[in-house]
Amino acid sequence: MKKETVEQYRAKALEYYEKAHIVLTDEEKANIEVADFGLNDIEKTGLQLVVYVNTDRVCAKEMVLLPHQTCPQHRHPPVNGTPGKEETFRCRWGKVYLYVEGEPTPHPACKPPEGSEAYYTVWHEIQLNPGEQYTLYPNTWHWFQAGEEGAVISEFSTHSTDENDIFYDPRIKRIPEIED
Amino acid sequence: MKKETVEQYRAKALEYYEKAHIVLTDEEKANIEVADFGLNDIEKTGLQLVVYVNTDRVCAKEMVLLPHQTCPQHRHPPVNGTPGKEETFRCRWGKVYLYVEGEPTPHPACKPPEGSEAYYTVWHEIQLNPGEQYTLYPNTWHWFQAGEEGAVISEFSTHSTDENDIFYDPRIKRIPEIED
Repeated sequence: MKKETVEQYRAKALEYYEKAHIVLTDEEKANIEVADFGLNDIEKTGLQLVVYVNTDRVCAKEMVLLPHQTCPQHRHPPVNGTPGKEETFRCRWGKVYLYVEGEPTPHPACKPPEGSEAYYTVWHEIQLNPGEQYTLYPNTWHWFQAGEEGAVISEFSTHSTDENDIFYDPRIKRIPEIED
Repeated sequence: MKKETVEQYRAKALEYYEKAHIVLTDEEKANIEVADFGLNDIEKTGLQLVVYVNTDRVCAKEMVLLPHQTCPQHRHPPVNGTPGKEETFRCRWGKVYLYVEGEPTPHPACKPPEGSEAYYTVWHEIQLNPGEQYTLYPNTWHWFQAGEEGAVISEFSTHSTDENDIFYDPRIKRIPEIED
């Protein structure tokens, strides 16, 4: 990902944090994490986030999805003898569609990003509006996509080790390489 | 605590969640927890909160302190072979003064509630404005008080077992008895 793209998506994310009245420090604003998952198509597959805290036991993040942007299908496996990451998503602003293992929803609201259809296999849909939340237990396949206005989502979880996440799409790299 | 007092403080808390633009479901609004810690002086010693999630591993709460209201000094001891509760406070709105073990602050901004001075022994002051946060590790004595406008504070923590909290003031009962 180009440094310029990172800055561009940081600025976009900031607009959404402001819409949701989420107050960030200047340091947090300057370091908003921008992830394109190595697919170089961040408008469709991407995520912007601020990690508030990530200790050995607890992690909290504030995530932004731009309109129709998708966080691709992944799971959190057991790591170092712990059961793997457990996470609760709470929608703060906008709307997010979460897809998890289980009975497929007959007419899902979302489509996978074009060209990546093969890597989206779980279709039980949970719609989260502001104030609504859902808890995901470890090692469950899941992906999520914002509605047409985008979304701001709090994540409350156990310790986060993004580098251990397993993505269904083998092309994905969670930790981006930033070029000048 | 009288049921009427609970309802009155729920309504007050709701005003602060609204000022902070925190969206709650109707069910959460109807069940805002109101704690007077058994001291029957909730204006001075009390806390209002919504528990978003409390699994075996992760807990998240949204707390309201009314102007100058105090959450009294307590600690989270080891429970059932776990190290005790770890918590991160993040101020979302208003201002909160957190007092923890360590070098006493020479001119602290807060006073303990009148008549309870003997039960406030830790005086290292941390001031939290919106967007600022602090992580407390298990078994650390701490207490906190809102500034003159009140405060809304997110708490990200390990599993919460309020009934195991140890308060410095032996008169305190964390789990209130509600009378009609």
